[in-house]
Amino acid sequence: MTDEVERARARERAADMLADAGVVLTDEERDEMEVVDYGLGDLESVGTEIVVYVNDDRYCAKELVLFPDQTCPEHRHPPFDDYPGKRETFRCRSGEVYLYVEGDGDDSESSDEWSVSPPMREEFYTASEEIHLEPGEQYTIPPDTRHWFKAGGDGAVISEFSSPSYDEKDVFTDPKIDRMAGRY
Amino acid sequence: MTDEVERARARERAADMLADAGVVLTDEERDEMEVVDYGLGDLESVGTEIVVYVNDDRYCAKELVLFPDQTCPEHRHPPFDDYPGKRETFRCRSGEVYLYVEGDGDDSESSDEWSVSPPMREEFYTASEEIHLEPGEQYTIPPDTRHWFKAGGDGAVISEFSSPSYDEKDVFTDPKIDRMAGRY
Ligand SMILES: [Zn+2]
Ligand SMILES: [Zn+2]
Repeated sequence: MTDEVERARARERAADMLADAGVVLTDEERDEMEVVDYGLGDLESVGTEIVVYVNDDRYCAKELVLFPDQTCPEHRHPPFDDYPGKRETFRCRSGEVYLYVEGDGDDSESSDEWSVSPPMREEFYTASEEIHLEPGEQYTIPPDTRHWFKAGGDGAVISEFSSPSYDEKDVFTDPKIDRMAGRY
Repeated sequence: MTDEVERARARERAADMLADAGVVLTDEERDEMEVVDYGLGDLESVGTEIVVYVNDDRYCAKELVLFPDQTCPEHRHPPFDDYPGKRETFRCRSGEVYLYVEGDGDDSESSDEWSVSPPMREEFYTASEEIHLEPGEQYTIPPDTRHWFKAGGDGAVISEFSSPSYDEKDVFTDPKIDRMAGRY
């Protein structure tokens, strides 16, 4: 478990990275920043720091912060009820991001060719098409498509624009992961 | 008419303001930046510089740049067909913004109390509730609600998160305005 002291420290560190990228937050946004360890208890290697600007029934916008070499683990956003599943656009603001997305069936790119390695529990990283994002570059992920991403050695700030987020509906490849762990 | 030389100059100036706010653009985004004079031919006072990151059938994200004291004139985003009308969230990134939104019926705030004045053709500025936005502050405008906004003396950079944009459907209060003027 990531304890409250570590979470507070992570918030401060992420807020500093956002400030360096020119992103101004209100005090309330800083205090309410989500620190997600996905229930694995190793925030430094598997985690995401998230500021949600807006998430309503029509659209969603967030900033995602990744510490150096931190990974957001593999997941997909499935359809449910009348909702076709979340589509999301990642725009790199600072640092660099290695994004891996499910390929068109043949999974031609082998993990031998990846620029970075999954953080742990490698068997649960299967999306293999590598997309490298530098500041100003962006990529859109269709609904129900497996993806994971890892920051380069300086960390990364990523703006996410999307259809509404229903985090509790996300499906992670690693069955040990609990997206809602540590929420309060 | 705003000629091509003036448009190119406006793009460069807006790109500099974005860079100062920490926003990195690709060369293509810089070249394709929209310079809107609303057909009034006085870009410095009535205009908006726009970088569209994504605009699909589910969501839209843009950066809006306003030069010092530049105004985006009054308009609303009406529903049409099956579309309930555009909802939009403005987040101030740099500078300051004076946003005026249609009140709850009684239009209690008189224009005497506004912090800034409409640029010209004042009779077409009727939304009267003033919202002042500084960096890190944001406001969401419901569909079909009249609004206009003006930058402070240092200009402003505004991130817009919204449902899909159909600019050609926007309804401006001033009948002389042509949103699509000068598009190419
Ligand atoms: Zn995702
Ligand atoms: Zn609008």
